[in-house]
Amino acid sequence: MIILKSVITTKTTAIAHSNTALIKYWGKRDEELIIPMNNSISFTTEALTTTTTVEFSEELTKDNFILNGTEQTGKPLKRVVDHLAIIREISQTNVKAKVYSENNFPTAAGLASSASGFAALTSAATNAAGLKLDKKELSMISRRGSGSSCRSFYGGYVEWIANNEQNESYAIQLADENWFDIRDIVVVLKTPERKMSTRDAMKLSIKTSPFFKSRLDTLDTNLAKIRLAIKERDFNSLGSVAEMDCLSMHSVAITSNPPQIFWTPDTVKVMHFVENLREEKIDAYYTIDTGANLHILTIPKFEHEIVKQLEEKILPEKIISSKPGPGVKVVNEHLF
Amino acid sequence: MIILKSVITTKTTAIAHSNTALIKYWGKRDEELIIPMNNSISFTTEALTTTTTVEFSEELTKDNFILNGTEQTGKPLKRVVDHLAIIREISQTNVKAKVYSENNFPTAAGLASSASGFAALTSAATNAAGLKLDKKELSMISRRGSGSSCRSFYGGYVEWIANNEQNESYAIQLADENWFDIRDIVVVLKTPERKMSTRDAMKLSIKTSPFFKSRLDTLDTNLAKIRLAIKERDFNSLGSVAEMDCLSMHSVAITSNPPQIFWTPDTVKVMHFVENLREEKIDAYYTIDTGANLHILTIPKFEHEIVKQLEEKILPEKIISSKPGPGVKVVNEHLF
Repeated sequence: MIILKSVITTKTTAIAHSNTALIKYWGKRDEELIIPMNNSISFTTEALTTTTTVEFSEELTKDNFILNGTEQTGKPLKRVVDHLAIIREISQTNVKAKVYSENNFPTAAGLASSASGFAALTSAATNAAGLKLDKKELSMISRRGSGSSCRSFYGGYVEWIANNEQNESYAIQLADENWFDIRDIVVVLKTPERKMSTRDAMKLSIKTSPFFKSRLDTLDTNLAKIRLAIKERDFNSLGSVAEMDCLSMHSVAITSNPPQIFWTPDTVKVMHFVENLREEKIDAYYTIDTGANLHILTIPKFEHEIVKQLEEKILPEKIISSKPGPGVKVVNEHLF
Repeated sequence: MIILKSVITTKTTAIAHSNTALIKYWGKRDEELIIPMNNSISFTTEALTTTTTVEFSEELTKDNFILNGTEQTGKPLKRVVDHLAIIREISQTNVKAKVYSENNFPTAAGLASSASGFAALTSAATNAAGLKLDKKELSMISRRGSGSSCRSFYGGYVEWIANNEQNESYAIQLADENWFDIRDIVVVLKTPERKMSTRDAMKLSIKTSPFFKSRLDTLDTNLAKIRLAIKERDFNSLGSVAEMDCLSMHSVAITSNPPQIFWTPDTVKVMHFVENLREEKIDAYYTIDTGANLHILTIPKFEHEIVKQLEEKILPEKIISSKPGPGVKVVNEHLF
């Protein structure tokens, strides 16, 4: 990592998009550094965006974090302060920062706001701190704030390399957002408050699920299948392997002790809805993160029909349809 | 096996109860003989009853099977005819039979009607054919009609021994129905028609689920825990291990290819309902067979409260509350 300047420069704003995992990240080898147990693959989700402005200022006595117009305290503030501390250590400063952040989607809806949030924060804060870093370096810093955020630095299809000989863990791009046009129809459901954080649920799975190791054993094959499906633009292979990996990850959670069942009745309703779409010869598969919401993966020509049927048969809280989007960008319009 | 007489004697009627598995039977080592991959443990479910009358008669040109007043054809008839053929072979006769059978619960509701059905049929038909067999022998014959039916010959808590040196697979009693009084609140939901038979779903799991073998590896421990829980009348241990094994079995089904998701939205609603009961300090656990219905396991003092809350919050199609019941009995009142 090259530190060009440790002098605080400017206010910086970055825009990052969330990402949707096709092969899930579930379980850490290193809790502190956030090194995952397995490689994961995602695509960047254009429609789910976080914009973050960071300004370091000698006048501040502590860090501030305003999310969607509301000053944050407690855990959300602590995660941002801890992440700024990592960036301050790299840039050899102790100046405090003001962080404004806005999601274009409901934060509490159980969508992966920490992925876009930490990607935007890392990009804006390192830039504002005068660091000039490449995406590999950015992904490694961002990973320590939120693991899956490291995949949001690149557009299109991205693989998070768990670990290599240098003990580094970072993201690489498999194909850009123009390579293979798919659709991610995000089905936002009424989500009950989760009883356990994703972090704790992962730890529990490693310790207690009899299937944790068996899932890891399947991953080399499934990662290879997804890489090939992306390369060959084979949607049915991509979708079916993603759905199977989602069910494998959730089965690991379900067989943890105590069981972690993230699905609500509506989740299962949508799962069967997607199975029925396939019986109607509509190419569609689902994937589910740590929560009740689903992502229905499809190809552009079925997007309209699926949204229509969702509105008729499911009536979810919100439907957000997305294509693969670009990586993190620094922009000139600030939030304050 | 001692064949006392091959002469056809009398019309015989038997009553058998279904059973509820605490450790599930999932997967066969031998498809033809129905030798399971693993031992399973159940208790006999008093409230779910099949009564069957069998009469062999030289006047019949083919077997007849009347279930709940309706003459059966196709698959249901074929399973009964095939089972009668096994019994005819043992008793060295080729006389045809008339079989009348009545369930005291809705047959198509996804309850385990084949367990009580084949236990009653085996008992009545062998008796009517003049065979005098003990329960071990009966359970081995019945197993070939429906695997889990072999557990219904005994009252109370029963283990189905997968296999032993003699290549025999039969049921034994762990404790009778008076040993340990628990309640099984059967929650009957609106169940969609299944796309695949249990038999085919098991075969698919063996072939395609990455977790099939891992589940088998957990079973020695879980079987031992359930045996001990029965011996020590430790309800919370019995319930929590049963619930975990149910989730393990369903995870194996869910990770089969194509996925076998037996749960409906209402299934998941009841799963979370039971989790909430525990938060209210009500001892309750669920187990789910190959279908959408659940069995809520509890102790007598919570039975009324749980049924009340089910009626208020879930409003299922039907609630059937049962205690552990007796084994198969031959009775004198016939159905025809």
